[in-house]
Amino acid sequence: MAKKSKSTWIWYPGDYEIWLGNQMNGRRTERGAFFPPFWKMDSHYVTVEFSKQLELAEPEDIYIAAEGKFNIKLDGKLQFGMPDSFHLPAGTHHLNIKVWNQATPPALFVDGETVHTDGTWKVTYEDKEWIDESGKASDTSATTYMDAAHWNFDDPGARPSEFCLSLRPETPVTKKETNGGILYDFGRETFGYLVVHNPGGGGLMHIYYGESPEEALDTEHCETLDKLKFAAEHVTDLALGELTRRGPVYTLEGSKAFRYVFVTTDGNLTYDSVSMLYEYLPEQYRGAFRCSDKELNRIWDIGAYTMHLTTREFFIDGIKRDRWVWSGDAIQSYLMNYYLFFDSETVKRTIWLLRGKDPVTSHTNTIMDYTFFWFLSIYDYYMYTGDRHFVTQVYPRMQTMMDYVLGRTNPDGMVEGMTGDWVFVDWADGYLDKHGELAFEQVLFCKSLETMALCAGLAGNGADELKYAELAAALRAKLMPAFWDEAKKALVHNRVGGQRSETVTRYANMFAVFFGYLTDTQKDDIKHSVLLNDDILKITTPYMRFYELEALCEMGEQVQVMKEMKAYWGGMLREGATSFWEKYNPEEKGVEHLAMYGRPYGKSLCHAWGASPIYLLGKYYLGVRPVKPGYEEFSITPTLGGLEWMDGTVPAPQGDIRVYMDAGRIKVTAGTGRGYVYISSASLPEASRGTVETLGEGRYRLWIDTKDEVMITYTPN
Amino acid sequence: MAKKSKSTWIWYPGDYEIWLGNQMNGRRTERGAFFPPFWKMDSHYVTVEFSKQLELAEPEDIYIAAEGKFNIKLDGKLQFGMPDSFHLPAGTHHLNIKVWNQATPPALFVDGETVHTDGTWKVTYEDKEWIDESGKASDTSATTYMDAAHWNFDDPGARPSEFCLSLRPETPVTKKETNGGILYDFGRETFGYLVVHNPGGGGLMHIYYGESPEEALDTEHCETLDKLKFAAEHVTDLALGELTRRGPVYTLEGSKAFRYVFVTTDGNLTYDSVSMLYEYLPEQYRGAFRCSDKELNRIWDIGAYTMHLTTREFFIDGIKRDRWVWSGDAIQSYLMNYYLFFDSETVKRTIWLLRGKDPVTSHTNTIMDYTFFWFLSIYDYYMYTGDRHFVTQVYPRMQTMMDYVLGRTNPDGMVEGMTGDWVFVDWADGYLDKHGELAFEQVLFCKSLETMALCAGLAGNGADELKYAELAAALRAKLMPAFWDEAKKALVHNRVGGQRSETVTRYANMFAVFFGYLTDTQKDDIKHSVLLNDDILKITTPYMRFYELEALCEMGEQVQVMKEMKAYWGGMLREGATSFWEKYNPEEKGVEHLAMYGRPYGKSLCHAWGASPIYLLGKYYLGVRPVKPGYEEFSITPTLGGLEWMDGTVPAPQGDIRVYMDAGRIKVTAGTGRGYVYISSASLPEASRGTVETLGEGRYRLWIDTKDEVMITYTPN
Repeated sequence: MAKKSKSTWIWYPGDYEIWLGNQMNGRRTERGAFFPPFWKMDSHYVTVEFSKQLELAEPEDIYIAAEGKFNIKLDGKLQFGMPDSFHLPAGTHHLNIKVWNQATPPALFVDGETVHTDGTWKVTYEDKEWIDESGKASDTSATTYMDAAHWNFDDPGARPSEFCLSLRPETPVTKKETNGGILYDFGRETFGYLVVHNPGGGGLMHIYYGESPEEALDTEHCETLDKLKFAAEHVTDLALGELTRRGPVYTLEGSKAFRYVFVTTDGNLTYDSVSMLYEYLPEQYRGAFRCSDKELNRIWDIGAYTMHLTTREFFIDGIKRDRWVWSGDAIQSYLMNYYLFFDSETVKRTIWLLRGKDPVTSHTNTIMDYTFFWFLSIYDYYMYTGDRHFVTQVYPRMQTMMDYVLGRTNPDGMVEGMTGDWVFVDWADGYLDKHGELAFEQVLFCKSLETMALCAGLAGNGADELKYAELAAALRAKLMPAFWDEAKKALVHNRVGGQRSETVTRYANMFAVFFGYLTDTQKDDIKHSVLLNDDILKITTPYMRFYELEALCEMGEQVQVMKEMKAYWGGMLREGATSFWEKYNPEEKGVEHLAMYGRPYGKSLCHAWGASPIYLLGKYYLGVRPVKPGYEEFSITPTLGGLEWMDGTVPAPQGDIRVYMDAGRIKVTAGTGRGYVYISSASLPEASRGTVETLGEGRYRLWIDTKDEVMITYTPN
Repeated sequence: MAKKSKSTWIWYPGDYEIWLGNQMNGRRTERGAFFPPFWKMDSHYVTVEFSKQLELAEPEDIYIAAEGKFNIKLDGKLQFGMPDSFHLPAGTHHLNIKVWNQATPPALFVDGETVHTDGTWKVTYEDKEWIDESGKASDTSATTYMDAAHWNFDDPGARPSEFCLSLRPETPVTKKETNGGILYDFGRETFGYLVVHNPGGGGLMHIYYGESPEEALDTEHCETLDKLKFAAEHVTDLALGELTRRGPVYTLEGSKAFRYVFVTTDGNLTYDSVSMLYEYLPEQYRGAFRCSDKELNRIWDIGAYTMHLTTREFFIDGIKRDRWVWSGDAIQSYLMNYYLFFDSETVKRTIWLLRGKDPVTSHTNTIMDYTFFWFLSIYDYYMYTGDRHFVTQVYPRMQTMMDYVLGRTNPDGMVEGMTGDWVFVDWADGYLDKHGELAFEQVLFCKSLETMALCAGLAGNGADELKYAELAAALRAKLMPAFWDEAKKALVHNRVGGQRSETVTRYANMFAVFFGYLTDTQKDDIKHSVLLNDDILKITTPYMRFYELEALCEMGEQVQVMKEMKAYWGGMLREGATSFWEKYNPEEKGVEHLAMYGRPYGKSLCHAWGASPIYLLGKYYLGVRPVKPGYEEFSITPTLGGLEWMDGTVPAPQGDIRVYMDAGRIKVTAGTGRGYVYISSASLPEASRGTVETLGEGRYRLWIDTKDEVMITYTPN
């Protein structure tokens, strides 16, 4: 069927997301071995009841499609069979459709003249409808209902379980005979399914993938590979054990990330060429950035491409080796996404997947800090999108996740790594003590408790709001006494057995800056004692560079951060990067850049957390951010940070916000939203519309309440 | 493959059981509508890691079969692909195989010269094997391992997910043209797939099933039916929407319970005859009973057949309408089973299924009392089988189930029905107050706490043992003050708002008897004030008759109970029963016997709880029961209860126990076990072996420690 309607496929919130995530997480391979996650993989509720109260002025025939065995109950009466159409008489009716499916999430599509499956339907996995001997139905008020979840499956033929990413053919840009095989270069980092054209004869084909030519040619150590057996009638994918009928074109079953492919054959197997099917999630590039610095433009472009490669069924970390969903990586993807695609569906999917199901038996991805980033990401999402409904839907799982954390605090109410907890913080080129109470973890924990209080309020749970606010306040009151070292002018790294350590690291200090946990004096202290202090252990991952540079931007150091961005991300570009890396240490040379985890090509050369300039440029140079949830009110604080001019767009729910700035003019076109533009100027700026207010110390602001362009002239100071 | 070996398919404990239970619970239909349970249906862990520490003197090739995608890790190193054979070098190795399967439980079969999958393998759903950047693996000690579960899938081709019950063709004994169709009678209650022979022409076939002829002929009200559409090439099962190629024989997709089948056709559809495939779990009838009373023999036979019909993938309640697994029904099936099949595997499967997975979100089957019966069933199982390993495996789920109960107690530490709790007790022909604290529920709760303490001890958890023993003692101390009415000489039914009710029912009183919660005086009071008092609301279900008669037997009323059994179960036989019913009220007439739940044929005429004479005759007439777990020591207290003679067998783990008794002789052949025979006699009995001890008041005992027959002569008193 190709019918389009107001109906959409619906399911239990989180269930499709968890199931689809399992599919995706299950596609990771390591040298031909299947490699699923090492944490509990959850699954969907196998039986779900969908229901809707109907008021029909006229009788109506509905079309029904379900993923699973199902029944129909009209006004409490079970109906015969599993028909694809059903007649509803006029009047008030209660329609219940119960679907069972072990393999894929129970999903439903109903379409009639006025009846449509959508988010107004209710769903439950536990209907508790017992009857007594007299045939009287029980009080079912104990059943917990949720609003049905949905995405964009608006066609009855577009079954959610059959969802696939999009494909586009690509060809290699060069090929070279070497080492007894052929090395193909696809020109840049890419992702998809290799295609073999016109295979002849028979034998084995070995395919070695590389993000670098060194990796593809190192058949003993490359991270991913494939082995095909071409026989007279069939081709066997030996890693997956799958058999395909042989034809003139063979497309591999498994997708891979690579730029280079090294192919060898044995027997009398021949082939004409290879190509690939590039696999991607269709995304609209709503965010944009151009400026006077070509290198920075290239950084933005490569950042956007890195984001696109890692924005798939979910926001994943890296596309070659890893291909799993990680909470600490994801929260950064979300933030970059708000300045690039503004793809809320992929944010929500990823949040559901990371949370999984109850019972909680470990931290998110087993990592303590990643649990906290999961909480934080929900409030971020709310601020950018204004989607209070999602917060309400996910709030019960926030509660049980926080119950888990609170069940593991020490007598002082702080978290310490217990058996089974991975205290990650960051990959560091130096020793990071993970023992005892880490200041970094307490800061994140405190912010998570504040987030719980905020979300409890949004979900209408006043008791929880109070409880979490009290817990947050209690912990926050302990942070400075426990970790602030007045001599070092910094938060120390940790406290073990009540003993404050002597080590200072950047992590807790920079988070304390933008969580607002410091006095202005402390903030200024930290800038010099920690953030701009080369004696403090350097950060070598774009992951923590993200926060480090954000903290500096928060303190108005855009000029300094611009230099760092050009040095660090520009440094990767000068090393030939076509997407940004998991880790970059400018002091390393040549193939040293490829190694990680004790493996010569263990490092991911396309890692989402590498794309943070997308976020920094949007939020701290174009200077756009939401002030009220969903950009109901925005603020724009454009800052050139050393650029001659910049011109960019930031997506927002009511319409994109475009900002142009040079050394004298600011132009803002702000969709249908409302908000202030903040201007630093040596004299009173002039605006094409509205009245500029003076804030003092060379700071001004202008209220914007139009979708037309507003031009401001100012004097750089 | 048809290879047999020491290997068996293994899986995560409870997972296959839950999955198989969903399959079975999903086969219930109501007039052609799919009808799954109304409580949360759980599912298997989708990714499970199996592991084994190996010590190989010689290198060895292993055969690997898995249900799901899998990987192999040898000594921490992932191996290429999913091969069906793998080479293990000699030496010490750690072998890990991780299997992912969304649709059916991950299962594994490995077979080599010395390497065999079995219960010594470890399984986990959460391996927590992160590595740090240096490639160092984490401490994985936080991973929770269980012993792998298995059943009888000892052939690599016998994939657990493909398990089916056995089939045997049967034909109707009579047929009769009536009401425009043909009524077939299969001679007795049965279960299986109807088969249509030599269909000709085309059109619809309507099939109406009945446990009675009235039901089969009442096409508007019969509980189950099928509708087939015969077209030129295909037959469509319209209830299931399944299409089958047409041939000379058509077997229905869905199984049904029935004795009678009424078939009508339309169009020019013809057929020669119908037959059926009887579907059953192969069971060995290890228990047996014959006596001087032919009616009692018939009661035992029909009870055994009722048990066999309801002993399927699991112990279910009834085979026609219901076909789900219910805890209160199941505990009685288990007890009967210990005196009939001694099928421990089906007991364990049913216990796993009833418990499901965490989190606990409602009582077992939504019923408060059924939660308590679930606890009690585990200790029963341990007493009859001595299988401490199972108690250890299931203990973590006992803990979380009891956490749920304890989280719902009132300030007085008692349970009351809260929103969402079904307080069932029994189907009664009269008003049963379900409000406030029911004495019945507190008595079961108290015994459940005692069971927790016992099982905590068995699982080696001393802290829990103490905790639950204290909770049990505290509750027990409150029972008599709260519910014992000295004027009524009975436990009253309930207490609402601290106010003891005036009503006395049988339920709490009879459980208090065999839980030993009463003084001898109180027991004797209850016998007359409640159990033998016709003014107390009568029990009309075999379900509670089970306990009522057990309580009377415990008090030595075998003569009275024999009369009741003959009247009640004999009454059903005189009504034409070929299996025992869900409910029987001797005062009802004709088709009144068929109605229940406000529906004319709502009553199940084959209900497991109808078979209790199997249990009563084995335990209280043959008098055999375990004294130490697993019959390490037994006791035999044969009691004729009015019979001239009886001769029966009770299964026990070490060998069956056979008991013959007449008015002068007792003959015992007691497998390889040890235990006492207790004899009531007017004079000192004589034994063919051993020395009879005198206990006083005409009671004697003889220690048995031989597998040979021991003959005792005694004088009836």
